[in-house]
Amino acid sequence: MIAILKPGTTPQQTQHLVSWLKTMNLDVHISQGAEVTVLGLIGDTSRVDMDLLKSLEMVETVKRVSEPFKQANRKFHPQDTIVTVDNARIGGGYFAMIAGPCSVESEEQIIEVAQAVKASGATMLRGGAFKPRTSPYAFQGMKGEGIQLLLKAKEATGLPIVTELMNISTLDLFADVDVIQVGARNMQNFDLLKELGKTKKPILLKRGLANTIQELLMSAEYIMSEGNENVILCERGIRTFETATRNTLDLSAVAVLHNLTHLPVVVDPSHATGRADLVAPMAFAAAAAGADGIMVEVHNNPACALCDGAQSLTPPQFDELSRKVQKIREVLV
Amino acid sequence: MIAILKPGTTPQQTQHLVSWLKTMNLDVHISQGAEVTVLGLIGDTSRVDMDLLKSLEMVETVKRVSEPFKQANRKFHPQDTIVTVDNARIGGGYFAMIAGPCSVESEEQIIEVAQAVKASGATMLRGGAFKPRTSPYAFQGMKGEGIQLLLKAKEATGLPIVTELMNISTLDLFADVDVIQVGARNMQNFDLLKELGKTKKPILLKRGLANTIQELLMSAEYIMSEGNENVILCERGIRTFETATRNTLDLSAVAVLHNLTHLPVVVDPSHATGRADLVAPMAFAAAAAGADGIMVEVHNNPACALCDGAQSLTPPQFDELSRKVQKIREVLV
Amino acid sequence: MIAILKPGTTPQQTQHLVSWLKTMNLDVHISQGAEVTVLGLIGDTSRVDMDLLKSLEMVETVKRVSEPFKQANRKFHPQDTIVTVDNARIGGGYFAMIAGPCSVESEEQIIEVAQAVKASGATMLRGGAFKPRTSPYAFQGMKGEGIQLLLKAKEATGLPIVTELMNISTLDLFADVDVIQVGARNMQNFDLLKELGKTKKPILLKRGLANTIQELLMSAEYIMSEGNENVILCERGIRTFETATRNTLDLSAVAVLHNLTHLPVVVDPSHATGRADLVAPMAFAAAAAGADGIMVEVHNNPACALCDGAQSLTPPQFDELSRKVQKIREVLV
Amino acid sequence: MIAILKPGTTPQQTQHLVSWLKTMNLDVHISQGAEVTVLGLIGDTSRVDMDLLKSLEMVETVKRVSEPFKQANRKFHPQDTIVTVDNARIGGGYFAMIAGPCSVESEEQIIEVAQAVKASGATMLRGGAFKPRTSPYAFQGMKGEGIQLLLKAKEATGLPIVTELMNISTLDLFADVDVIQVGARNMQNFDLLKELGKTKKPILLKRGLANTIQELLMSAEYIMSEGNENVILCERGIRTFETATRNTLDLSAVAVLHNLTHLPVVVDPSHATGRADLVAPMAFAAAAAGADGIMVEVHNNPACALCDGAQSLTPPQFDELSRKVQKIREVLV
Repeated sequence: MIAILKPGTTPQQTQHLVSWLKTMNLDVHISQGAEVTVLGLIGDTSRVDMDLLKSLEMVETVKRVSEPFKQANRKFHPQDTIVTVDNARIGGGYFAMIAGPCSVESEEQIIEVAQAVKASGATMLRGGAFKPRTSPYAFQGMKGEGIQLLLKAKEATGLPIVTELMNISTLDLFADVDVIQVGARNMQNFDLLKELGKTKKPILLKRGLANTIQELLMSAEYIMSEGNENVILCERGIRTFETATRNTLDLSAVAVLHNLTHLPVVVDPSHATGRADLVAPMAFAAAAAGADGIMVEVHNNPACALCDGAQSLTPPQFDELSRKVQKIREVLV
Repeated sequence: MIAILKPGTTPQQTQHLVSWLKTMNLDVHISQGAEVTVLGLIGDTSRVDMDLLKSLEMVETVKRVSEPFKQANRKFHPQDTIVTVDNARIGGGYFAMIAGPCSVESEEQIIEVAQAVKASGATMLRGGAFKPRTSPYAFQGMKGEGIQLLLKAKEATGLPIVTELMNISTLDLFADVDVIQVGARNMQNFDLLKELGKTKKPILLKRGLANTIQELLMSAEYIMSEGNENVILCERGIRTFETATRNTLDLSAVAVLHNLTHLPVVVDPSHATGRADLVAPMAFAAAAAGADGIMVEVHNNPACALCDGAQSLTPPQFDELSRKVQKIREVLV
Repeated sequence: MIAILKPGTTPQQTQHLVSWLKTMNLDVHISQGAEVTVLGLIGDTSRVDMDLLKSLEMVETVKRVSEPFKQANRKFHPQDTIVTVDNARIGGGYFAMIAGPCSVESEEQIIEVAQAVKASGATMLRGGAFKPRTSPYAFQGMKGEGIQLLLKAKEATGLPIVTELMNISTLDLFADVDVIQVGARNMQNFDLLKELGKTKKPILLKRGLANTIQELLMSAEYIMSEGNENVILCERGIRTFETATRNTLDLSAVAVLHNLTHLPVVVDPSHATGRADLVAPMAFAAAAAGADGIMVEVHNNPACALCDGAQSLTPPQFDELSRKVQKIREVLV
Repeated sequence: MIAILKPGTTPQQTQHLVSWLKTMNLDVHISQGAEVTVLGLIGDTSRVDMDLLKSLEMVETVKRVSEPFKQANRKFHPQDTIVTVDNARIGGGYFAMIAGPCSVESEEQIIEVAQAVKASGATMLRGGAFKPRTSPYAFQGMKGEGIQLLLKAKEATGLPIVTELMNISTLDLFADVDVIQVGARNMQNFDLLKELGKTKKPILLKRGLANTIQELLMSAEYIMSEGNENVILCERGIRTFETATRNTLDLSAVAVLHNLTHLPVVVDPSHATGRADLVAPMAFAAAAAGADGIMVEVHNNPACALCDGAQSLTPPQFDELSRKVQKIREVLV
């Protein structure tokens, strides 16, 4: 970390600041320039509060040289992490095709969709049991019963299952779930992240609507710093001024993340766009951008889905998408 | 709710849709126009999934005529809500001046600040005990011990206390807290909101960084629909492209909210701007925009605060701010 | 266009409004519902000021049923437009690979780059002669001399040239330019658009940093309504809160635009990301999303480019990119 | 300007970079630290391309210590600039109350409004003659004739007039205009700014919808660097995800600008919010935030205005607004 002091800072002021920094177990290297004085802070700067440092009268600016995340950092872990999810893998060249309905609605529905997406190449089944809804009056999911139905679909197809947890108090219900999803709205629910860090389950961590790539990595760090290294990152659109799509899918995040971290990155074009007609082009684009997986909503009867039908594909649409995604991946190798 | 059907929709298709809408206990009024057919949906449309309706082939667009929030809606509750917080009030002409340090650090600190802000006109004391921090390696607050120190400061000054709860499992520790704050990152932690709705405590609900005004009201609705009507809304800046300030304080939200809801609205210029030099002008602006209160960070030694020192005022700065805010309010009456 | 009136509107008020609408040569169809009255406006509603209509006391909301753009609208022109650019084509299955340096710097440089990109499959040469720069003190381009050098490069390679015009007073200098580029900052310089509409030259119109997809189409409409139908749209990133990339490339815009308009759409991953390491993945993603072309910065010596070197590829990097883009396109057919 | 080099940079590489920097007439001061090497660049760094410098392999990051704007910079010009506009002044304690209709429509209208706003304390008259409209089919203003009508209103009331210029070719028509407005969409029309810099007329420069505060100052610099120091800055809302208001008024920009520049800052709450009911609270807030003036739309018959009626006040509404703004300003002194 580099702190640049304002012109006119006295040697006493500089010394006072250096002493204070040393109380934080940092080594400080002083470079006295013609125009400015630069302090190089050496040691564990991840605990240093940049905002506080910037607030000091004598400090012009502060700049991190090293990123504030460690366990998620590719610099300290150059090889891609491969997360094992039951019989499937993701990362390091393994591509995950995650598909399924927005919400679990019935045994018949979830098994039918699971069989269809498996036949089209899906490697994991997704389905919402606990549903975060903006309105308290909207359908909130089948909850525990929904998880039981997902497990039946797993039994019928062998597909590992991915489903969202909203509240740590329901963790017991997720004992047989293969991947626990943390939704965009909970990306900075730090207490939840810490608790999930104490499990060994793969966690699919969705980027928040207004969260930066670095904040996503810091949230992954919350999970990893508690001992769980099985984190899968998910880009699902950010909030911008554009209203033609529900959110703006930030596909450059895939390449930026691959540069910064060894963790696998999946893309969810269904929630990002909110429009079925945009799912296929955005899934192709995600694969071309180098994503380690995509997560797509598929429903056997989109027009009657209890929620998010607008963005679901039919099984035949998913089948075509899946084949083309596979071909695009072959081009990139 | 109005649904506009596409040109070319057949009478059979229209009838099919109408039947389906009626299964949701809605009355449907059909207006057959030259260019388009318009359906008026009458009944409890707050449960209708607009996205689903829009996704249907034959539907051009859907428009809510009534807002999806009820208990927070000024239409059904025209008078301002006045929330009573121990010996203080907020809303309906009562202005809350909430001040205190970002984090509780020691008994001496919190009592000293509490006495200073009380002397300058504060009506409530704020202080963080549980601190949401982007990094797992940063100071996370004094937790339960911090709440005990806030209660000592209340004993010493009589000021009711406001502090943030991050996790419902810690609710017991908040038994004597006067106002429970829900932070911006938890604004859509719906399970947390529901649990707080079951208490009778005043809740200060901060707007999320990327949440619309309507979403803020829907989150208030989560609390109110469980029986707790003591909700105070808080504007604290939204995330935009501008980097000169930490966030962009959306002061028009104050007037928009007063139009839509009867709940009181406070403004937090400290977190919004992240810069001490901007706190006073933004506090004045908030008061002039008609806010029911402001929440300001004050520290007895800003340069040494463990977090967020960059945005804290000294007691003399707060004293001047408080006097001018009072005068601006007098102009508006 | 649909106008929904507020409950409680009197028949006289409705009649007054209808009369006023008829003065604008609109037919009005009235649907009297139980809850609301809906007016259907029939005729040339592109001239109706929606904001004004919404401002009227009695009006609850106004909704366009038809888009406000006509000549760019796919509804009235279902086939893809193919723009002919000298010996190249774009749109309707023809893909444009546009490459070249950010700025023209010397005859040697531009010819060397032109030969290199041609050998790697480029179909057009780009290069800046007039450079829009945030600072008045920064290099502003070689201007007319730069255009002359581009024409020499065209002579040497046969590649048609694309370059930006900032000011209509310089139009004469563009007489032999094949495609005139309108930069993001000028997307709503309406007088400039009108003048370009009077030429027959192909116009490459870049989306503004904070402009919606619909506004981009309305700006295309400014050009087309003056008689020039040779408009090529360009997505080059929008401004959001994320700072890891210069802008956020909105690839869903490609698919949204293909749905709304018959005009070709190209993507500029160089300016969008501002980082050379992200150009290839975003170019692949753009091709996979169905773009009709990509525009990439290539420099023979990126480290010494006078501007924007940070985002330029070397010729070998471009060669690899070009080959993979071609293969991805083959998958999509 | 500070450039921080990556760990592992060899002395030869460093020397190569230093030589190159010296070719730009910069002095370079090298600080060799334990972890990093820091280069201090001394001289006219406003011409240095930060992006290029960052793009070099060996450079970790680059940081400006001094702002890239000079003539607008308060550091070099500590006293507030007072712009004289005929018989009115703005800045340095002089407050401008600018009011008038969105568009000039007729002699009767503009004179009636001018007389009304003058009676209520307006110090300048605004009115659009050239109107930038998103749609080529919408009313584009009375153009030269509109300016003539504004001049008649000036004759009748003595109020200096403010009106927008969209195209430098129309400059002659503005010979008697007191303040030339540059609209948000033209904020980075650099050729236009340069031409206006060659006049001596006061320029009211509106912030672009997606432009940072620093970019606004760089655009002011374009005008000032050509010799015209009479620049008035205008905050009029930025584009964000929130749709309750047309744009999000960034009032913190007022205080940020006052810190960075000596130029006066006015606020336009009418265009920012797009809603008449929000104009007064936002005008009060702007005054409380320390603005040097406000610009408000007033129409004698809002319901029939040809454009932007939704955001216009009636003369009695403006009268009340004007009196309260005056009182708020008295509190701040």
